[in-house]
Amino acid sequence: MAVSLPFSLFDQLGIKEFGRKLRRREITALGVTQAYLDRIHDLDDKLRSFVHVMGEQALRCARAMDELLAAGTDLGPLMGIPVAVKDLFTVTGAPVTAGSRVDISGLVEPEGSFITRLKRAGCVILGKTVTTEFALGLYNPTHRTPWNPCDARIARMPGGSSSGSAVAMAARLGAFTVGTDTGGSVRNPAALCGVFGYKASPGLWPADGIFPLSPTLDSIGFFAASARDAACVFEGIAARTVPPPRPLKGLRFGCPKTYFFDDLDDDVARACVWAVRKLEDAGAQSVACDLDEAREISTVFAELVPAELVAAVGKRRLLENEQKIDPVAWARVMHGVDLSAVKYQAMLKRHRELGTVIKARLQGLDAWLAPTVPFVAPPVSNFTTVDEIAALNRRAMRNAQPVNLFGQCAVSVPIPGVPLPVGLQLAAPAGQDAALLSLAQSVERVLSCH
Amino acid sequence: MAVSLPFSLFDQLGIKEFGRKLRRREITALGVTQAYLDRIHDLDDKLRSFVHVMGEQALRCARAMDELLAAGTDLGPLMGIPVAVKDLFTVTGAPVTAGSRVDISGLVEPEGSFITRLKRAGCVILGKTVTTEFALGLYNPTHRTPWNPCDARIARMPGGSSSGSAVAMAARLGAFTVGTDTGGSVRNPAALCGVFGYKASPGLWPADGIFPLSPTLDSIGFFAASARDAACVFEGIAARTVPPPRPLKGLRFGCPKTYFFDDLDDDVARACVWAVRKLEDAGAQSVACDLDEAREISTVFAELVPAELVAAVGKRRLLENEQKIDPVAWARVMHGVDLSAVKYQAMLKRHRELGTVIKARLQGLDAWLAPTVPFVAPPVSNFTTVDEIAALNRRAMRNAQPVNLFGQCAVSVPIPGVPLPVGLQLAAPAGQDAALLSLAQSVERVLSCH
Repeated sequence: MAVSLPFSLFDQLGIKEFGRKLRRREITALGVTQAYLDRIHDLDDKLRSFVHVMGEQALRCARAMDELLAAGTDLGPLMGIPVAVKDLFTVTGAPVTAGSRVDISGLVEPEGSFITRLKRAGCVILGKTVTTEFALGLYNPTHRTPWNPCDARIARMPGGSSSGSAVAMAARLGAFTVGTDTGGSVRNPAALCGVFGYKASPGLWPADGIFPLSPTLDSIGFFAASARDAACVFEGIAARTVPPPRPLKGLRFGCPKTYFFDDLDDDVARACVWAVRKLEDAGAQSVACDLDEAREISTVFAELVPAELVAAVGKRRLLENEQKIDPVAWARVMHGVDLSAVKYQAMLKRHRELGTVIKARLQGLDAWLAPTVPFVAPPVSNFTTVDEIAALNRRAMRNAQPVNLFGQCAVSVPIPGVPLPVGLQLAAPAGQDAALLSLAQSVERVLSCH
Repeated sequence: MAVSLPFSLFDQLGIKEFGRKLRRREITALGVTQAYLDRIHDLDDKLRSFVHVMGEQALRCARAMDELLAAGTDLGPLMGIPVAVKDLFTVTGAPVTAGSRVDISGLVEPEGSFITRLKRAGCVILGKTVTTEFALGLYNPTHRTPWNPCDARIARMPGGSSSGSAVAMAARLGAFTVGTDTGGSVRNPAALCGVFGYKASPGLWPADGIFPLSPTLDSIGFFAASARDAACVFEGIAARTVPPPRPLKGLRFGCPKTYFFDDLDDDVARACVWAVRKLEDAGAQSVACDLDEAREISTVFAELVPAELVAAVGKRRLLENEQKIDPVAWARVMHGVDLSAVKYQAMLKRHRELGTVIKARLQGLDAWLAPTVPFVAPPVSNFTTVDEIAALNRRAMRNAQPVNLFGQCAVSVPIPGVPLPVGLQLAAPAGQDAALLSLAQSVERVLSCH
């Protein structure tokens, strides 16, 4: 599949060059949007990454962008850029399901400030993409699972929960795609599908108009064709500058001594060792560090996250709809029902504490790194029982969840030259998003040099 | 003239209600823009407030706004709002003259961030309005002077330097209009033409793409049909919230004991005494305060401002173009040529000092007030010699310039029920723009209650 995907405009172009061509009138927003819609039409029957395509609205928006630009109004670097959005965000004119068959219409907020930002930046929203049910975990056996474009023959796990946006990005069905990340839901599918993924610092953008999983740990993120594109997208949405990428010489990466490099697939171990050596060869210094508090994810993600979801959706609504809910999601949700308020508050307190402790401990480092996911995308058919899938999910998220627990921002950078996609996770303290996206570009460059 | 002006859409509507109607599709940006262009076409032969009308571009922009809204992209509260801009701002597709016949094309910066803000907020730029030459003072006998709509029979001074934007606002040739204010250039014509004028805190918006008069004292401002509209405009451009207007009870206004209430026209004195009493009746407390440093404007505006203009335009360019320059402007410019660097720096230092001193002195006050201009709009024909006009200019700006000298923000609120327009100036420390615009709405309400 990967090799047979037809040429895409943005593959060659990058978002910055797209903007230049648009402003020189060599391309139009309308033409590009139509090309993306055609591509979705041609490919998404197999990929199944979109749950809702907003063709007419997108074309209308694109046409208005062209007109506006001709009239001298330039909305900025993301003007006319076609984008797909996870089906957790309210977008006026499209349904929101949060990946569930349960009727959540009464819980859905109006279009929120992040989508408003995208729109005011001039983005053209192509449609909404698959999420696993309530954005819980990476796979629902009873729900639609997008096809991971890394393998045309075997249906491999695309990762989750933002599976649709990752697959759409990998297949270039949008110039960038938007997701959310509570415990790895952007970085995990980014790694498994072989695209760049970015998870913002918590609270960088408000969460209004986004169906909540865990307000304590939720964050917004997006997928891009490259770190360079992700930096453009960040600048466009955040109206902040990403510093130009610097040589790696003198940069210091934390390399966790325990936990994060345990129990890796051979392919992942090999790729990550190679990547770290490449970074060192380029002058970066890797510094052993201790992030063993990562192990505390187990209770937080087993209990706090489901408890917050139950509070958001409502216990009665969930119990009344058991038959409609995927069994894997159901098993996780149920873990949250009986959490005591005392334990809940203790976990919140510990979460805040860890934010401070880990930030202090990583002082002087530019980022810390780890494999994003310990394995490469396995065949979907290998996992059938609830227990098998739950175990897969725990392993899949073990390196990503600590970032949310520590309240940080992070990216997953694809490591090139591997048979199946492997991602390298780089994480940094909350608020250092721009610096991290700058660093990610340097890493991307070094890894792609032969 | 005032009474014979035809009905205007925004007179009845206000910007907020315009937005609601636009979003309910009861009106279109295109329809409203066309109505404004028709109105400009019908009235501006007499008013002469525009130097350049951007009809085609405006219609194109408005059409795109309607399309964009239909496609679900809402650029916010100023979307589709037609606006006119002082001819000191670069707007792509239109010339910039800064009101001069001197060729300044080499000095003009590309379109700057304030105009970009207007455009990204969705404003439709109708055209550019008259400024006095280099924005120096209120009247150039050899240049075009817009007709003050307060009197249909006699050509009265519209004030300046943002004369065109004030007249365009008074005649409702834009939903709001933009100016600059270095020593009263927004507040002065706002008061004389009977519209609301707002001068932003220095540096609130960067000055790139605006032809400079005095970078030390320049600020951006705008004219609106009401304080309420001005608050909407501010919110749209600054992306900040103006607090809802509160009752005046308990608010404390500084009332300068000396200087500001000296030597007023009877009409102005009467209107201001009435206004202050109205505010007190509504529960505001007026507190005598000392702002006698206001007298220091004389050297600053006679020397520092011209010296900064000479530095911007270039001494040689000015000297070579004497015959093209209006004699009033020329006389003022020449004052700046020989200022010594030592004296210049002393004035800068004193300007900074005054910012701190006055801010500390006004602690605990919500604003201070004064008549904006000591007189009502006199007939243009009363002033012919350079000395007469220079004296008029000094008197016209005597209450406005101290605000720039003190580095504050300010508004001029029209006092209702007067035969010729009188403005009440309210000023507040730098950065308190949103609070001041909230307060101005309260004042506007109280003054308009009978």
